[in-house]
Amino acid sequence: MTILYKKVALIGLGLIASSIGHGLKKHGLCVTISGHAKTSNTRKKALELNIIDEIYDSAAEAVLGADLVIISTPVGVMGDIAKEISSSLKDGATLTDVGSVKKAVISLIKPHLPSSVHFIPGHPVAGTERSGPESGFAELFKDRWCLLTPLPNTDEVALSKLTEMWQRLGARVDTMDAKHHDLVLAVTSHSPHLIAYTMVGVADDLRRVTNSEVVNYSAAGFRDFTRIAASDPTMWRDVFLHNKEATLEILGRFTEELFSLQRAIRKGDGEFLHEYFSRTRKIRRGIVDAGQDTDSPDFGRRDSAEVTEKK
Amino acid sequence: MTILYKKVALIGLGLIASSIGHGLKKHGLCVTISGHAKTSNTRKKALELNIIDEIYDSAAEAVLGADLVIISTPVGVMGDIAKEISSSLKDGATLTDVGSVKKAVISLIKPHLPSSVHFIPGHPVAGTERSGPESGFAELFKDRWCLLTPLPNTDEVALSKLTEMWQRLGARVDTMDAKHHDLVLAVTSHSPHLIAYTMVGVADDLRRVTNSEVVNYSAAGFRDFTRIAASDPTMWRDVFLHNKEATLEILGRFTEELFSLQRAIRKGDGEFLHEYFSRTRKIRRGIVDAGQDTDSPDFGRRDSAEVTEKK
Repeated sequence: MTILYKKVALIGLGLIASSIGHGLKKHGLCVTISGHAKTSNTRKKALELNIIDEIYDSAAEAVLGADLVIISTPVGVMGDIAKEISSSLKDGATLTDVGSVKKAVISLIKPHLPSSVHFIPGHPVAGTERSGPESGFAELFKDRWCLLTPLPNTDEVALSKLTEMWQRLGARVDTMDAKHHDLVLAVTSHSPHLIAYTMVGVADDLRRVTNSEVVNYSAAGFRDFTRIAASDPTMWRDVFLHNKEATLEILGRFTEELFSLQRAIRKGDGEFLHEYFSRTRKIRRGIVDAGQDTDSPDFGRRDSAEVTEKK
Repeated sequence: MTILYKKVALIGLGLIASSIGHGLKKHGLCVTISGHAKTSNTRKKALELNIIDEIYDSAAEAVLGADLVIISTPVGVMGDIAKEISSSLKDGATLTDVGSVKKAVISLIKPHLPSSVHFIPGHPVAGTERSGPESGFAELFKDRWCLLTPLPNTDEVALSKLTEMWQRLGARVDTMDAKHHDLVLAVTSHSPHLIAYTMVGVADDLRRVTNSEVVNYSAAGFRDFTRIAASDPTMWRDVFLHNKEATLEILGRFTEELFSLQRAIRKGDGEFLHEYFSRTRKIRRGIVDAGQDTDSPDFGRRDSAEVTEKK
C-alpha cells in the first residue's frame, strides 16, 4: 500500500474526522496524523481512541508540516480556522474540508489562503445521527459518494491524490460545481432534515397527544423522522444558515406540492393520491439498485435485532 | 399453549394478515386458518406459503364457522366486505380489523353486523415498506403496540381473548377511543407518510437535479424518506381518505411550524434553529428508551451489512 501523505492534520474531531482517522490508519495512507479540536475533552478522547498520533491545543500548531489538512468542524467556524492557520500551512500542502455546503465554505476559506496551498473543497455524503470522536468508524465511507468541488485551475496532481485518498477509504468520488452541489444536497439532505426536525417539533408541541403516546406508537413512520432529527444541532444550524438560498427554494417547492396533496385529501381525490404514491415507490427501487441502501425491509432492523439477540 | 380460537378467518392476505397467520401457527393459537384475498395469485401464494390451511374464492365462504374474523384489506373496501360476510358470520364470533384509521372503519363496518357478533376494531402499529403475502413474518408484532378501540358495551370475554391473542403474538395492547386513536396516528404515522411522499415527489419532479444524482447522494437523509414513501399506495390512499380531518389538522400545524423555521433561516436566526434542533434530539432518546427503535446508529445498517457479508 502506497503512502499518500506523510502527515495529515485533522482540524475538528467529530464523527467524520474520526472516521477518516480510523480509515487512514487502517489502510496505511499516511505516516502521522496530527489533530486539534475545540474542547480539551474531545482532544483527550481522540488521542485515547488512537484516531490521531499528536494532539495540539491550537489548529495553527496542528497543521505545521502537514501535507494534507482536513477541516471537519461545523461550517460556521471554518472561516476563523482558515484565518488562524493560513500562515502556518506548508507550501504545496493540500487543504480540504468536509462541509455539507460548498459555495459558502469556499467564500469563507479561500480569501485567507496563500496561493502556494491547494484548496480542494469536499463533501463525503455519509454520516449517522451520532456525533463526537467515539462515533467514528473506518467503514463509514464505504460505497458512499464523496463530492469534490474543485475551483478553476486546481492542481491536477493534488486533485488526483485527494481523489485516491477518498477512494482508498472506500468512497466513490465525483466532481461538480459548488452551486450545483448545494442544490443537489438541498434536495437529498438539507430539506429532508429540516422537514424531519419540523415534524418532530410539531409532535412535541401537541399537548393533546401525550409524549408517551407519540413515543410508543412511533414505529409507524415517526421514529424514522426522529432519527434524522437527532443529528448534531450545531452542524445543522450552520448548514441551513449557509445554504439558505437553495434550501428555501426546495422548501418552497415542497410546500407547494404538499398543498396539492392536502387539496386532494380534502376533495377526496383518491386517483390523484394513488398515482402519486405509485410514482414515489419507484424511486426507492433506484436507490437500492444504486447500492445506496439495503433492500432489507424496515432498514434491516429485523436482521439487526437478530444480531443483537445472538450476542 | 392454550388454543384461543378454533377457527380463524383472514380476509385480505397482505403483510399484516400473513404475519398474523405465521404467528398464529408458530404459537399454536388456533386449530384452522381459513382465508380469502381478492386476487387468485395472492390466494395461491398464501396457501403455498402455509399462511392459511383453507382458501376460498369469496370472503363469505371463508368466514363460515370462524370464531375470529380478521379483516386486513385496505380500509376503503372494508364496508363492502362487512356487507358481504354479515349473514355468514357465526353467532358469538369476534370480528376485528387491522386498519390504520378507526373512526371511519367503525362507520363502514358496524351498520352491516348482526348483534350476535362481537365487533372489536383494532390496529397493530407495525409494518415494513413491503406488501403482499410473501412479506409477512411471525415476529412483526414483537414489542410493537396493538391499539384496540372497543365500542361501548363491548363483551369483556371477547375483548380479553382478543387482547391475549395480540399479546401472544408478541404485541403490547392498549385500548383507546377511536377519535383519539385517529389523532395520535395522524401525528405518528399519517402525516409523516404524507410528508415523505411529498418530498420524494418534489425530488422526482426537479428536472435540474438528475435522477441519478438524487439517487446516488441519497444517503444523507433522502433515502430514509424513500423507504417510507415506498409503502403500499392503495393502503395509504385509503388511510388519507378516511382520516381526512385529523391528518389535515396536523398538516396545518406542520406547515405553520415549517414556515417559522423557514423564516428563521431567511433571517439568519441561528439561536432559534439551534434551540429547536436540540429539543427534537431529546425525543429520539425517549423512543429508544421505550424499546420502539434500535439504538444502533443509522438504523443498524452497519450491523445489517455485516450480516449480509457473512452470509
